[in-house]
Amino acid sequence: MSRRRAGRPGPLWMLALLLIVPTPLWAAGSDGELPHLLLTVAAMLVAGKLLGEGAERLGLPSVLGELVAGVLLGASVLGVVPAPGESSAEMLRVLAELGVILLLFEVGLETDLREMSKVGGAALAVACVGVVVPFALGYFYWAWLPHPVTSDGGDLQTVAIFVGATLTATSVGITARVLGDLGRMDTPEARIILGAAVIDDIIGLVILSVVSGIAAGGTVSVAGVGTTFAVAIGFLVAAVMLGNLVIPRVADRLLRMRVRGMVVAVSIAFALALAALAAQVGSALIIGAFAAGLILRGTRHHQTVEHQVQPVAALLAPIFFVNVGAAADLRLLDPTRPGAGGILLVAGALTLIAIGGKLVAGWGAPWARFDRLTVGTGMVPRGEVGLIFADVGRKAGLLSDTTFSIVLLMVMATTFIAPVALKLIFARVRR
Amino acid sequence: MSRRRAGRPGPLWMLALLLIVPTPLWAAGSDGELPHLLLTVAAMLVAGKLLGEGAERLGLPSVLGELVAGVLLGASVLGVVPAPGESSAEMLRVLAELGVILLLFEVGLETDLREMSKVGGAALAVACVGVVVPFALGYFYWAWLPHPVTSDGGDLQTVAIFVGATLTATSVGITARVLGDLGRMDTPEARIILGAAVIDDIIGLVILSVVSGIAAGGTVSVAGVGTTFAVAIGFLVAAVMLGNLVIPRVADRLLRMRVRGMVVAVSIAFALALAALAAQVGSALIIGAFAAGLILRGTRHHQTVEHQVQPVAALLAPIFFVNVGAAADLRLLDPTRPGAGGILLVAGALTLIAIGGKLVAGWGAPWARFDRLTVGTGMVPRGEVGLIFADVGRKAGLLSDTTFSIVLLMVMATTFIAPVALKLIFARVRR
Repeated sequence: MSRRRAGRPGPLWMLALLLIVPTPLWAAGSDGELPHLLLTVAAMLVAGKLLGEGAERLGLPSVLGELVAGVLLGASVLGVVPAPGESSAEMLRVLAELGVILLLFEVGLETDLREMSKVGGAALAVACVGVVVPFALGYFYWAWLPHPVTSDGGDLQTVAIFVGATLTATSVGITARVLGDLGRMDTPEARIILGAAVIDDIIGLVILSVVSGIAAGGTVSVAGVGTTFAVAIGFLVAAVMLGNLVIPRVADRLLRMRVRGMVVAVSIAFALALAALAAQVGSALIIGAFAAGLILRGTRHHQTVEHQVQPVAALLAPIFFVNVGAAADLRLLDPTRPGAGGILLVAGALTLIAIGGKLVAGWGAPWARFDRLTVGTGMVPRGEVGLIFADVGRKAGLLSDTTFSIVLLMVMATTFIAPVALKLIFARVRR
Repeated sequence: MSRRRAGRPGPLWMLALLLIVPTPLWAAGSDGELPHLLLTVAAMLVAGKLLGEGAERLGLPSVLGELVAGVLLGASVLGVVPAPGESSAEMLRVLAELGVILLLFEVGLETDLREMSKVGGAALAVACVGVVVPFALGYFYWAWLPHPVTSDGGDLQTVAIFVGATLTATSVGITARVLGDLGRMDTPEARIILGAAVIDDIIGLVILSVVSGIAAGGTVSVAGVGTTFAVAIGFLVAAVMLGNLVIPRVADRLLRMRVRGMVVAVSIAFALALAALAAQVGSALIIGAFAAGLILRGTRHHQTVEHQVQPVAALLAPIFFVNVGAAADLRLLDPTRPGAGGILLVAGALTLIAIGGKLVAGWGAPWARFDRLTVGTGMVPRGEVGLIFADVGRKAGLLSDTTFSIVLLMVMATTFIAPVALKLIFARVRR
């Protein structure tokens, strides 16, 4: 299956050079916005796929290569991916959002609810421990322990609550991709990790809305927290139940039609519509996309849909991951910068808390039988969810540039470490 | 092959109603821009595919259904597709542009240059007649014949030159799609039409840049016209020649890689990069995308690439066609509106000129053997190219709202008439 092919890397590196060398040219000399955007997307796709291939040849999941490609193309190295605020950044964000929607749609298509319900209790326990422990540790560290970065941004208690909140997220996208890359989607550990990550996303949305309320100066009400929670859960349950009544009949008819591209267009339209609906009732886009995948998984045609959606997801998902990588600012690590040492120290401490807090979650369901270390490690990457948290905090003026960068470093570190650790742990389990 | 299936249309219409009924709801009550955009895209995809299927069941090409879906979703009926100027319209335009780029990329992938060069001389003659005759007739009609709409917008002579110019375009996208839908890509007529349409695009770009120069108050120089022409031709020739030297070796290597989605991501990145490059050297995006398709057609892997690109093109191309349809304003035809009769009269006259001028082109290459009426009819649809012309004129303040609407009606009429006529003519040829 995984035979390594020997051969000269010649033409490959020629292609990479062709794309990297003219970057200053196109960044400076473009007239129109659209050609610039197209070149940026082309560079992101090629760099993402080539470094993804490189990662796989080193025995690592390809998503790591895409993140590294993002760091290289980002503002701190080559500057190809536009920074937030540039006009083409907004369009790129739309493409990246489409990427993460298609990714979660694919995850839903690959998720067997009947299999997952067998691990429902364990997943819930793992998710709760994985939210409470990192939040408590992060809050305590920021609010009560001495560290070099305390007095900037908002009120110390509020910032500490926010930093704690960013530690609760789990990136179901990155974990799912790593498990898929490793061919481990069918293990009980994978089902618990994905179930817990989805529950984590829902809990994360509640925390995000609560913390956003604090940032806006509002009061925290138990009713508000309860409503946000009920909406997310209610949406998933209602969508899947209603969907399972209506969609199989509709799918039967659509698949008998003759027009080219009916399956891919209508199934992706369904995912986009449910994503938008989820956002409009106060939940998250990705929850809607995931629900759409779950519903189509329940039809007889899910393999046809998967086969057609796969090239589209393979095209758009790397744009999301490269974009995540591009948000990292390597200049913060420049040792000649004043305060660089302190930033690294705090970011390191936060990363240790982030890893430790999620590892503990693996022991959160003592009655269930699965490999605790695998599940705990699978919960570590914060990925896009952590980035959404950090972004909200920065926009609300709660997180200073330095605190934002520290949170970003923690998100990046957990996202880089988890796939490597998972890979090593799966190798250990196999033995 | 084309067995018609009988059956109750129940669930289908349920789905259509589900999407159409809540449109006022989502148009009004959306918080975020992104959910609104996603719902719009979903509605465009579902309506386009369902009406496309409807068109096919009536024995018409599905692209007609997509255009009708666009008219229904556009500002004059349901108002789902945002009008130019709304913030989400800009993002939709990017997706539509990606659609037309992928469409031309696919056309390039399906174009056998060796087959096409056999008809090169005939295609060139057809293209030249199809540019000169409609331009002369349109200019003469607008500048010298009495008609109800003359004195608005810019100077009469300049407006007449511009109206003449909008008549020269040929939409290679729509024609290619109709020929593909009819399964007639392999006929000599199809090769001449596509070759002439591509040459028309290049000539059209020259005319557009010349007319834009007039609109901006500049002078028309023979050198300027020559340069624009040379750049477009030069780009196509240079890209295909250089590409044929480098790309086959690169493609061989890329296809041996293991990472998921390498083929689809890198080949589409190549199309995007060449499209951007074409725009940056002063040619058109679609010329670059077409060149990319031609180059990959020259590799041994073109069927693999086609197979992977097809779902992506089937997803994005309808967004382009629905968007084109949405630009039509049915309110202009309201008989209670003052001046509606005059508008219809002038639009009708211009449509007749548009059709007659291109039909004549079919007889432009008397030495070559092909069906003249088929080729002339295939050159009729103005589609996206005509819309680009009209848009430039409107933005330059040269075309008043009324003249713009008349040009738009002509573009729509030719785009609606040509597929029906082609279908009938191919049926006649078969007998």
